[in-house]
Amino acid sequence: MAAKPYRVLDVDGVRDFLAGVTEVRRRLGGRMSDWRVGEVGDGNLNLVFIIEGPEGSACLKQALPYVRAAGPGWPMSLERARFENEYFRAVAPYVGGLIPALYHFEPELHCTVMERLSPHIILRHGLIAGRRYPRAARDIGEYVARACFFTSDLAQPFERKLDAVALFADNTPMIRITVDLIFAEPYYEAPRNRHTAPQLDRAAAELRRDATLKRAAARFGEKFLTQPQALVHGDLHSGSVMVTVSDSRVIDPEFAFYGPIGFDLGAFLGNLLLSWYSQGGHVSGGDDREAHRAWILGEAKIFWETFRQRFMALWEQHGNGDLYPRAMFQGQEGAAALAQAREDYIAVLFADMLGFAACKMIRRILGFAHVLDFEGIADPYLRARCESGALAMAALLLRSPQRFRCIDDVLQAVPQIASTAV
Amino acid sequence: MAAKPYRVLDVDGVRDFLAGVTEVRRRLGGRMSDWRVGEVGDGNLNLVFIIEGPEGSACLKQALPYVRAAGPGWPMSLERARFENEYFRAVAPYVGGLIPALYHFEPELHCTVMERLSPHIILRHGLIAGRRYPRAARDIGEYVARACFFTSDLAQPFERKLDAVALFADNTPMIRITVDLIFAEPYYEAPRNRHTAPQLDRAAAELRRDATLKRAAARFGEKFLTQPQALVHGDLHSGSVMVTVSDSRVIDPEFAFYGPIGFDLGAFLGNLLLSWYSQGGHVSGGDDREAHRAWILGEAKIFWETFRQRFMALWEQHGNGDLYPRAMFQGQEGAAALAQAREDYIAVLFADMLGFAACKMIRRILGFAHVLDFEGIADPYLRARCESGALAMAALLLRSPQRFRCIDDVLQAVPQIASTAV
Repeated sequence: MAAKPYRVLDVDGVRDFLAGVTEVRRRLGGRMSDWRVGEVGDGNLNLVFIIEGPEGSACLKQALPYVRAAGPGWPMSLERARFENEYFRAVAPYVGGLIPALYHFEPELHCTVMERLSPHIILRHGLIAGRRYPRAARDIGEYVARACFFTSDLAQPFERKLDAVALFADNTPMIRITVDLIFAEPYYEAPRNRHTAPQLDRAAAELRRDATLKRAAARFGEKFLTQPQALVHGDLHSGSVMVTVSDSRVIDPEFAFYGPIGFDLGAFLGNLLLSWYSQGGHVSGGDDREAHRAWILGEAKIFWETFRQRFMALWEQHGNGDLYPRAMFQGQEGAAALAQAREDYIAVLFADMLGFAACKMIRRILGFAHVLDFEGIADPYLRARCESGALAMAALLLRSPQRFRCIDDVLQAVPQIASTAV
Repeated sequence: MAAKPYRVLDVDGVRDFLAGVTEVRRRLGGRMSDWRVGEVGDGNLNLVFIIEGPEGSACLKQALPYVRAAGPGWPMSLERARFENEYFRAVAPYVGGLIPALYHFEPELHCTVMERLSPHIILRHGLIAGRRYPRAARDIGEYVARACFFTSDLAQPFERKLDAVALFADNTPMIRITVDLIFAEPYYEAPRNRHTAPQLDRAAAELRRDATLKRAAARFGEKFLTQPQALVHGDLHSGSVMVTVSDSRVIDPEFAFYGPIGFDLGAFLGNLLLSWYSQGGHVSGGDDREAHRAWILGEAKIFWETFRQRFMALWEQHGNGDLYPRAMFQGQEGAAALAQAREDYIAVLFADMLGFAACKMIRRILGFAHVLDFEGIADPYLRARCESGALAMAALLLRSPQRFRCIDDVLQAVPQIASTAV
């Protein structure tokens, strides 16, 4: 099939296009008239189609030239589809089982055809519904450890890393969104901000006057832009994870770039904490959600501990890169020195995780893009009560990092802060 | 003139080539047979020709396809000439008066034609000779402040910085030299190492067993590879600065890349300290070099203070980038918070400067490439005594960073360490 210029696909367009992609056509089976196609996208940026044929299914994701949530008035580079594809290709050798299988990428259409994940649902939706996914936190901890370790220069010569740094340095429209919406606008009265008003007016104003907190947030903004440790997903919240009770997959890496590992860690942890604080707004029937809350906190610990153990083990086994070179740390004393260096490195990742988690939490309550965990709470008083707990916890993480030396410190603080803030 | 493939230029080749470069031909004046051409390069990597015509002069620097100091057995990418050119172009708007005027760049020949600096000499040679250059430290402090500030995302949108990050990410052969020769090999018994033996055998062995010191050195190696704060020169020692008593120029930026600002600061400071420790080897006539030593330490302070003040002032005046965005720090409280953030930032640069200075000092004594400050001391016992002082000071900087809170702490320690080590 000759390449056609970009066009926004509809249901018929998807059918026509896939009929020309041999691998996908075979996978679906039958004739194109047999294929059921439906648009299911609910994200901010893309069209998502599910295609079911007699023999198999597929998912097609197409980038739109504007922010879907805002409409054509907010244009957005189509190149993000390419970076999503590049990210998946880069990490597939290390986390292949934790991402969708990729069938086809079509540059002109800025679309990717991939495995249809079924019966998976978005982790965020599951958490809101009060369901448990016993593998999710462990799988994502493992995912971040593997994807980040192997794309860092702990694992490989820096030359390979710099090639990839240069490639993803072009993903600027997506990085611009992060820089503005996460690290700047929530901290002043920017036009795109919104919050539950008037209930949170005072909390928002206080946070925006808090010099210590703002310095910390800006410091993490600086880290985000000046610390290419590894290829990060860039948007690893609970809406970018699809789950069943026995499987987890990471999707939507269009924000991918070389940045601090703590940014991915913080995205996932921060969204677990948002979920925790939102549970009071989803009490129903006889379920007060206390057990679910306890489970979520336990998963936060499992997430960090899994990441920590896996990352350390990978470093011990595959630390063949230019950072902390093996040749420098020979013998028994050298091994001990290197072990200590690893502990120091992990301690910084832990602190980064908490700081980035806090930034992610704040932006979902005071910034432009909110999360269903809170948006799904109809009563604004109840929603504000939940949000104010999350906001207070995030503020504490930024203001008093020295209070959080280990993950148990976080687990203990979360319920305390909730009762203070409510 | 049609482009010719790469060839190593000789005196006649230089004449032929420049006859075809209109701007340079006019500048030199007369006919090509009137031009006096001489090769004067004494560096590790390049040919350098001085061309004098009836009306003007020029300097031509050509990259060789191997490390000059090692011979054709150690090949080296010619692309470094392009990066030198790109660096000069990038910083010229900010430090134009502190670099040579650029006349012409010839990609195929990997050569740059630039201003002949006269009667400038290499700062290192001046320091060895016991001469004072009252502008040098102040000028280089100003240089690093301006070149680094304006190429950081403190001054500009991150998109512009990332374009430049991607460009310089290709300068891998030069970065490889730094990674291996500065941050790895000095810390183990690598084949390319050498030191004054047997006098320094014990000091070398002790340093290579020192777990705390090696972790610190590896941590600075990590910073070097994972912290693109600004476009750094990458080799800003006293051999990359040409001076008269009233003028200073920075040359030889072929190691340019996006890295930590402290790397340039540390290169200059570290080489001032090497000069200080080498002075005892250059006592002659009635000059015990004590006054020169005191002057050098004073210049070290002037260097840091100038950098600090200029960098802060530039940030206050031109801080329009994405880091610490102005919009976040409005009003009186905001201004105070931002001022504190700047102090924090500068404190990290200070600590980085000391750590990188130490790494630079160690590699010049235990690694592959040494400096004339010590190499020019014929008596190995005397040389080893000088070197051991510098080595002890560098080790202290890496082992006990908490002892050095301000530049005066460094100034006080330097003479103390000398008397202990000697």
